[in-house]
Parts: sequence; structure tokens; C-alpha cells
Amino acid sequence: MKYSVMFGKTTRNVARDEVTANADLLTRAGFVEKLMAGAYSYLPLGLKVLNNIADIVREEMDVIGADELLMPMLHPKDSWVRTGAWENVDVLFKLESRTGREYALGQSEEEIVTPLVMSKVQTYRDLPIHVYQIGWKFRDELRSKSGLMRGREFLMKDMYSFHEDQADFDRFYEITKNAYLRVYERLGLVAKVTEASGGAFTEKISYEFMVLTDAGEDDILYCDQCEFCINVEIADLQSGNNCPKCMQGTLAQARASEVGNVFDLGQKYGRDFGLSFIDRSDSKQFPIMGCYGLGISRLMGVIVEKFHDDRGIIWPEIIAPARVHLVNIGNSDEVIDHANDIYTRLCQQGISVLWDERETTAGIKLKDADLIGIPYRVVVSSRTLEEGKVEVKPRTDEPALITIDELISRLNSTPA
Amino acid sequence: MKYSVMFGKTTRNVARDEVTANADLLTRAGFVEKLMAGAYSYLPLGLKVLNNIADIVREEMDVIGADELLMPMLHPKDSWVRTGAWENVDVLFKLESRTGREYALGQSEEEIVTPLVMSKVQTYRDLPIHVYQIGWKFRDELRSKSGLMRGREFLMKDMYSFHEDQADFDRFYEITKNAYLRVYERLGLVAKVTEASGGAFTEKISYEFMVLTDAGEDDILYCDQCEFCINVEIADLQSGNNCPKCMQGTLAQARASEVGNVFDLGQKYGRDFGLSFIDRSDSKQFPIMGCYGLGISRLMGVIVEKFHDDRGIIWPEIIAPARVHLVNIGNSDEVIDHANDIYTRLCQQGISVLWDERETTAGIKLKDADLIGIPYRVVVSSRTLEEGKVEVKPRTDEPALITIDELISRLNSTPA
Repeated sequence: MKYSVMFGKTTRNVARDEVTANADLLTRAGFVEKLMAGAYSYLPLGLKVLNNIADIVREEMDVIGADELLMPMLHPKDSWVRTGAWENVDVLFKLESRTGREYALGQSEEEIVTPLVMSKVQTYRDLPIHVYQIGWKFRDELRSKSGLMRGREFLMKDMYSFHEDQADFDRFYEITKNAYLRVYERLGLVAKVTEASGGAFTEKISYEFMVLTDAGEDDILYCDQCEFCINVEIADLQSGNNCPKCMQGTLAQARASEVGNVFDLGQKYGRDFGLSFIDRSDSKQFPIMGCYGLGISRLMGVIVEKFHDDRGIIWPEIIAPARVHLVNIGNSDEVIDHANDIYTRLCQQGISVLWDERETTAGIKLKDADLIGIPYRVVVSSRTLEEGKVEVKPRTDEPALITIDELISRLNSTPA
Repeated sequence: MKYSVMFGKTTRNVARDEVTANADLLTRAGFVEKLMAGAYSYLPLGLKVLNNIADIVREEMDVIGADELLMPMLHPKDSWVRTGAWENVDVLFKLESRTGREYALGQSEEEIVTPLVMSKVQTYRDLPIHVYQIGWKFRDELRSKSGLMRGREFLMKDMYSFHEDQADFDRFYEITKNAYLRVYERLGLVAKVTEASGGAFTEKISYEFMVLTDAGEDDILYCDQCEFCINVEIADLQSGNNCPKCMQGTLAQARASEVGNVFDLGQKYGRDFGLSFIDRSDSKQFPIMGCYGLGISRLMGVIVEKFHDDRGIIWPEIIAPARVHLVNIGNSDEVIDHANDIYTRLCQQGISVLWDERETTAGIKLKDADLIGIPYRVVVSSRTLEEGKVEVKPRTDEPALITIDELISRLNSTPA
């Protein structure tokens, strides 16, 4: 990618109502642009990051044997009336066509996936089934001031599982929990698993995956010795208490952001739709269902909240929009030719590069590189040329002069 | 992929109101499932085909230097009032939030892209700009009976270009026209370019890309000698007339389906939003804009209309959900082991395979293979084992017994 011709560059033009680091930095760095509160356009660099996160989630869902599909966003009213959600879910967007038909915009898809999956299930032999999609959801939020972290329109991976009994759901929940933890780990995040209330979906307990960050919207209590973690909203505990699980540690309270959730839906949806299967004792039975959410665009926001400094974003290499940010300082034929050679060689090696070849000052280029936050900044100038080297600077480390061959072998030895 | 555990198999369960070949075949073969008229779920095989088509379109857009971005689907009412479309576009879905704010669902995105792009344009030096997205659109259609060919929710590539003058638009239109023709050619389609009215968007002429098919919704007149082609709705001509362009050929009339369109939008949107740039003579000027649509889900429907026989779908290899449909006939350990070896070897070679390893009759498996329409059917049975070979049958050709090595080298010599 050449920066001069790429659409969406750094800007100072940030809406005054953007109060979060993620919205401020992603806008200033040219990754997103706000259309209205809770709805953003993803510019080329931002779309790359979003797709990179989605690909990691997709890989881990495929590993656990879930099938990817894609359901519509426009849903018939009937399905939502059936489960009570047409009246009960206050964030549901509703609309009416010119023919008088009414629709909901999907904010979760139990209403659609239950009839779809159960139309293919006759007996327990057809279970379990686990399907997921990566698609856009809509929520009629009263307020939406957290940048990508709380959208009225947001990208989510939502998986649904169907089981013959509770034990099989529990088995699959453990598998999914580990897949989720792998996703967060690959993204450089440490997530804690908490129990919370099931919200509108279920009377059962739900599980939430929480990343500690001051930009979060939840408060959690966690043990300093074991894995115990709970959302304060359902905890009969407070900071400083002994851990009720290991009895050894002390509970600490922290602000956290939810980056995933699992709802044990029980038999609610099978019952609502009257869709059953024949179980092992030859009786009709409603399936036990699970719903597993993981917000992709939300994660992009959380990652920026966690990984930035006062100069800009610090992308984890695995989801960065490119691995190398190439900068030529000076525009002599010699420097440009050399930068062009490096650009070509890196591209040929399959190493993604953003080359800032604009005719502007070194100060602006280096400042923009820090703001954009690509892992390796590579500077070419008459000075580096004299030494037969380039200056390589990891985003949060000191620069060093090395040869192109050294640069390529270093990047190839640690593939993103 | 192993068929027994894949979600979404062949079915006889097709809604009675599905009157088109594409909806009937795609549903029976397990690629899509109708949620309601004009809105389909894409099951795993269907999602693969849809993504394959999108990837081809994306490649050709990238070749011409367009930047991919992604804009929201939920649009503020104000933007649509500004251009008159809130009142004039009858297929626009409108909705109101619980806070009283009104929104439109995107059915095309001039209203969003114009302010987005023009916020980054000061002078003619910043032009041209061409950005595209591959995203879902919504249209409040009165009727929607053509399967994937006319959706209320559909996947579209929409590109928008911004130029300093008409000549630059004309230049870019020619580039895009050739990119579109390459897309259709790669998909095995022959498209004709017609002139039509500009519809609600513009008073200017628009260009439509038409594929001849009886399932189409348009009638066109085309010359049997030259490239002349026109939509009958704006033609002062009829079948049998002399061609007004080459004067040699005779016009024939045919039913066709629109698979792409280009609107010369002139200065309408810049003017509506009051967004201008400084031109070469230092004056304020509104940009000349173009809009370039290409329906991805619609193309999937058109392709099935064009490529099927009475046994099922005949996928062009480049977008097929897999290249090989492996079938074991018989379930002896020997046959299963052999089929498993072939499955593993093909996967290792990067050749995508759908293995139907169900314990069911040969008749059902072979019939399903024809219905699903993957390019190469490979049968393993005790008979083929005796010969040390497999039976390979291209979807529309005769079967032949060849060795696995021959199969692999044939598939590798013609990569999809």
C-alpha cells in the first residue's frame, strides 16, 4: 500500500463528542470515521484490522468444529413475538415495510437459528449442532459514547449450539471457553471468566469474558490467587473479602470490558417454537441451547484502549494493518529508488508494507507512523543509505541500523 | 469437509412459492434456506460460493486501484432528506428508534459516501478517488419471487468515484467496464453492456451489464454483428430492425438479467450536500460522481439459472464450494481407508474436497452429488480399488478410471 494514494489518512478532525481513547485514536489515525453515535465507517486500514480480528475468531471456531453460515439481518416480526422478545427487548430496532409487514433488525439470532437448525433435526443422532456467523447486529442503544465498544451497529461472531442434554452443553461450553481464551491470548489480551446474570435471554447464569481496562463498562471482583472472578452486579462480596473459592486469596475490584459471553439458554427457544427431537428413550424433548457471543468491532476498540500511548496506537502484530511502515526521508532519486527497492522486496516476501511516500516533512511522517501504530517502522534516508542499512524501530522500542537482509530474516523468523 | 457432520444437507423441503430454478436448486442442494421472501440464510456451502464470488469481484476492484472500505447500513434520516431520496425512493426502508431518531437502511450509499469522501478533498489534486465496499443492502420490494435474484436483503459490491471533470469520469468508466467484463468472464458469463434510463438516481443515461437468461427481468435488443445493445424500455427500436450502430447487423430481442450497473451521477450529490473542491482555475466546483453496482448474491442466483440441468447445479469451477466431491460406495474398512487416504492427500495438496462419507445408498450419494454440482465427482468402491484407480466424473462429462496421481496432477495443472 502506498500512503499517498490510499483513502483515509491521519486527521485532526475528530468529533467533539468522542470521549474514548479508541474513538479518538482510530479516527485521528484514519482507521474509522463516525457517521453518527454508534455507527462508524471502516476506512481501508480499519477494515484490514477488523478482518484480521474476524479471521482469528473464525480460525478458532473452525478448530472446534463449528460450521460457519450467515443469516439475514431483517427478521419477520412473528419470530420475535413468539419468544416474547418483540415486547421485552428494549434495544430491538423495529420497522414496517410499505406493505405493512413488520420486521426486527437482528440484535442476536436465536429467533432465526432455532427454526433453521431444528428443521434439520429429527432425533438425538442429529445432535449436537453448532453453527456460527460473523455478521452485523443492531441495537437501539439510548447512549453510544464508547467508540467501537458500544455500537448501534456492530460486528459480532455469534455461535449457537443445540444439545440433547445439559451434560453435552456443559462439555461444549468448556471447549468453547478454551477457544475464546485462545482468541484473546492470540490478540495479546488476558481475559477473566466471570459469572453474571443471564439478562433478557435466560434466567440461568451466564458467563462473561472480561478484559481489565479503565475504559470498561463493568466492575468485577477477582481473586489474586485463583481463577475466581465475578461481576459485582451479582456478587454478595466486596473488595478485600477472602476468596470464596480458594479461601486463600483476597478479592480485588477492577473496571473491565466484556469481550465475550456465553448464555446457557436451556430449553427456552425449543419450547417457544414448539420444536423438539426424539431422545434416546423415544420421547419428544426440547434441545438445550447455548449462545456464544464475541464482539469483533468491540474487540478492536478494547485493543486500542489497552494498547496505546500518548503518541498513538500500538497494534498487536497479528492484527496490524501491515507489518512494516516504510518511510523515506528526503525525496532524492537515490532515496526514492532505494525505498522502492525495499518496498518491492518486502512485498515479494509476502511481508505487508505501508509505504509513506508523500512529499512532506520527516516530522509529519514519523508522527503519523507513531499514531497509526504499525509494529515496525523502517526509515530510509541519505544517512542510512551511506551506511548501506535501514533504520528499524519497533513501535515501543529503540531504533537500530540493520541491513535489508537482516530485516527480512528477522520478520520471516517471527511471522505475524 | 465431511458431509455427515456438515450443517445443511440436501432436502426436499422447498417452500411452495419458490418458482425460480435458482431458489429451488439452491434450497434443495442445501446452499440456502429461505427465512422469508427476499431474505435467505446462507448455509456453509452457500456461504463458500458467495465468498468466492465476492473474492473475484474484490480482486478485480483492487486491480483497478479502488480502495475497499465499509460503511454503516443504518443511516441518519438527515442525509436522505438532503438528497430528496427520503421522499422519492419508494424501496427505502425507514425506521424510528425509541428515542425518536429516524434512520434509513442503506439501499445504495451516495448519501453516506459523498460527505465521507469530500471531507478529505480540498483541491483537484486530491482527485480522483474511487472507493468500494462489499456489503449488505436493503430494499423494500413489493414482490420478491426471484430467489437470490431480487432480495429485500442482498450482498452488493458498490463503488463510488469522484472526479474533477466529465472526461475523467469517462476514462474511469471505461476502466471499470473492462474490470466488470473480466469478472463476468471469469465466472463463465457473457455480459452485454446496454444503455438504460438512470432511474431515481440521475437524469443521465446509465449503463447496465446484462446476461442473457430466460429467468431475467429485463428485455434487451442486441445486434447480431456488433456490440450494440439497448434496454427495450428506452429503445425506439424493435426486433428485426437494422442495427443503428454498425448498420450491418439485425437486432434480436432477448430476456436478460442485470448483473451490474453504472450510474453517471454528474454533480447531483456534491450539489445536494454543498460539498465542492477547488479546481484548476482556482474556482469552487462540485465533483462529477459515478456509482458502480455489482450484485454478489444476485450473481449467485444468475449463475445457477445459467448453469444447471435437470439433475442439479453445475458450478463454474472458480466459485464451486469445493473442487472434488468424493464418494465412497460401500463401507468396508478397505474402501473407507482408501477414501480417507484420498481425502487426506487432496487436502494436503490444497485441493478442496467435500467427502460424502454417510452410510447410505450409492443411489442417494450420486444423486446428491449431481444436485450439489461440484465440478469433479470421485468415486471409490471395491471395484475401483481392484483396479488401483478411482472413477472421476466431471459434472457434465463421462466418467473415467484413473489413478490418484493422475487425478492430482490433472487438478494441479488447472488450478481453480
